[in-house]
Amino acid sequence: MSDSHNLWSEKTRAVMKIRAKLLDAARRWLNKHDYTEVHGPTIIPAAGDWPNHFEVKYFDKKAYLAQGLEPYANAFVANLGKIYTIAPAFRAEKLRTRRHLTEYWRIETAQQCDLDTIIGIHGELVAHICHSLSKEAVEELKCLERNVKDMVKLPQPFPKLTYDKAIEKLQKDEYNIHWGQELTWELENRISLQFNQPFFITEFPISIERVFYKSHPKRPELTLSAELFAPEGYGEIAGGGQMIDREEILLKKMKEEKIEPEDQRWYMGLKQFGHVPHSGFVIGLERLIQWICKLEHIREASAFPRLSDNVYP
Amino acid sequence: MSDSHNLWSEKTRAVMKIRAKLLDAARRWLNKHDYTEVHGPTIIPAAGDWPNHFEVKYFDKKAYLAQGLEPYANAFVANLGKIYTIAPAFRAEKLRTRRHLTEYWRIETAQQCDLDTIIGIHGELVAHICHSLSKEAVEELKCLERNVKDMVKLPQPFPKLTYDKAIEKLQKDEYNIHWGQELTWELENRISLQFNQPFFITEFPISIERVFYKSHPKRPELTLSAELFAPEGYGEIAGGGQMIDREEILLKKMKEEKIEPEDQRWYMGLKQFGHVPHSGFVIGLERLIQWICKLEHIREASAFPRLSDNVYP
Repeated sequence: MSDSHNLWSEKTRAVMKIRAKLLDAARRWLNKHDYTEVHGPTIIPAAGDWPNHFEVKYFDKKAYLAQGLEPYANAFVANLGKIYTIAPAFRAEKLRTRRHLTEYWRIETAQQCDLDTIIGIHGELVAHICHSLSKEAVEELKCLERNVKDMVKLPQPFPKLTYDKAIEKLQKDEYNIHWGQELTWELENRISLQFNQPFFITEFPISIERVFYKSHPKRPELTLSAELFAPEGYGEIAGGGQMIDREEILLKKMKEEKIEPEDQRWYMGLKQFGHVPHSGFVIGLERLIQWICKLEHIREASAFPRLSDNVYP
Repeated sequence: MSDSHNLWSEKTRAVMKIRAKLLDAARRWLNKHDYTEVHGPTIIPAAGDWPNHFEVKYFDKKAYLAQGLEPYANAFVANLGKIYTIAPAFRAEKLRTRRHLTEYWRIETAQQCDLDTIIGIHGELVAHICHSLSKEAVEELKCLERNVKDMVKLPQPFPKLTYDKAIEKLQKDEYNIHWGQELTWELENRISLQFNQPFFITEFPISIERVFYKSHPKRPELTLSAELFAPEGYGEIAGGGQMIDREEILLKKMKEEKIEPEDQRWYMGLKQFGHVPHSGFVIGLERLIQWICKLEHIREASAFPRLSDNVYP
C-alpha cells in the first residue's frame, strides 16, 4: 500500500477483520439452519412502538428510520418461515455512554416459535460465532488481548435468570433497586461481572419493555421477553421476545399506549401481507464486537461511528 | 403456517428466495477472493458529489442518507485492501419509472486497481452469481419463467463498448441523440435489446458522470467509468469507475463544481484515516434481480419497496 498514509492502528484493523469474520460465521450458521435472508425497509412511515426515531424528509412527507424488522417481520415469517436480516438500525437517543451508537448494525431473526425456543437459538448462534472466531481469527483475538480459549465451545444452554431473580440478587448485594425499575448501566455491569459466559435475563416487567411483546400467561405484569448479556461487565448485547398475536389485544394495547391512529392503521394494514404468531430477537453487532474484542468504548467497533454528539466525519 | 392469511403469491416468494440466494452467492465469491466485508456510515454529514440526498434531522444538525461507500472507501481500501459492502442506499429522486426505488440495496466493492480490472472483476462476480442461481434456484427460476440455461456460465469477459461507440450505434439506428447526452431509458432499452448477455459501456463524458471519477489520460473530456447493462432490454444494473487520486485535482474539481466548502473539508478530512488510488463499483441489487427474475417493475424485487410517491406500508 505504497500510496497510503495515516493508517489505522493494528488494533483497529484487527477489530474490523473480526467484524467481517463474525458476520460470515453468523450467516453460515443461519443459512445452514434454513433461515432466509430478508430486508425490511429502512425508511418507514410511522414510529409504531419504538421510541426515539430519526426523522427523514421524504419529499413532502415525514418519515422515520427503522430500528428493526417489526412489524414487517410478520409478513416475512408468514411467507418465508425462519428469517434473518443483517442491516443498520438507528436510534435517536441523546446518550453519551460507552455503549451507545445512534447508527448500529443488527443481526435479527424471527420465526414461528415461543420465547424459550428463540432464546435457545440465539444462545447457539452466539456460541457458534465465538467458536468460529476462536478458529478463524486467532491472530486478531491475540492482538486484542482476548484469550482465544474464552471463545471456544461456550457451554450450552447459556444460563438464564428471570428479571425477578436478577432484582433479588442485586438487592442481596445491597444495591438500591426495587422491582419494576430498569437495570441501569451500573447494575447491568454488576450482574455481568458475576458471569464468565453470556447469559439471559428473562421476563421483564411490561412497564419497561417494548409494548408489543406478549404478556406472561400467568403473570400479566410481565412480558415474554429476554435480553442476552455478555459477561465480564459488558452488559446487554441482544434482546427480543414473543410478539402479541391476537388482533384485539394489539388494538387494545395501541389505544392504551396512545399510539397515533395513523401508526395503528400502519400496523394493522401490514397484515394484508400475511401475519403469524412469532418471536424475534436482535443482536447489536457492535455490542457483541465490543465484548469479544474487549473494547473500552463501542465506537471502536465501527469504522465511522455515529454518536449523539457527532456525525463527523 | 396455519395461523397466517393473505400470503404472497408463489412468484413473490420465488423472487425473495432468489434475492437471498443471490446475496449468498455474491458473498461466497467475494469472501473466496479475499474481499473484506465493511460498513460505511448510512448517516453522513455532507452530500459530497452525490445529487439527490434525503435529509435527516440529526438532533440539532442536518445530515444526509448515504448513497455509497465513497469517500469512506478510501480509508477502507487503504487499511484492509480489497473490500465490499452490502448495504442500503437512498436516492431522493422524484422518478416514476419501472427501474427506480428511493431505497435500494447495493453490492459495492472497492480496491487498488484500474478501471479495466474492476470491470473484469464485476463481470466475473455477476457471472458467478448467475451460474450459482442456475444450480441453486432451479425451482424459483422456473416459477419466474426464466430459462435456467440463460444463467449458466455466461461467456467471459462480458462485451465492452465505449460510450462513443454506443452513441454511433444508436445514431446508425437513426435515434436522435448526439454525443454528450445521457442515455435515456428508451435508448438504454434499445441497446440492451441487442445483447443476449450482460455488457459494459465505458468512458462516459465528464459532463454526465460522477464528479470524482478520474479523467481519461488521453481524452480529458471522458471519465474512467463504466456501467454494466443487463441484456433483453433491462438496461443499466451497475456502475463505477476509477477515482481521482491526486489531491490538487480533487480540490480543483470541487471548486469547479461549486461543492460547498464544508463538504470539501469533509472529503479532504477523511484522508486522515488513510487514502489510496482505487476504483469502486456498485451493483444495484434490485436491478440485478429485476433482470434475472424477468420482473416488469423493480418494486417486485423488494418486499416493501419505497417509491418516490409512496412510503407505505
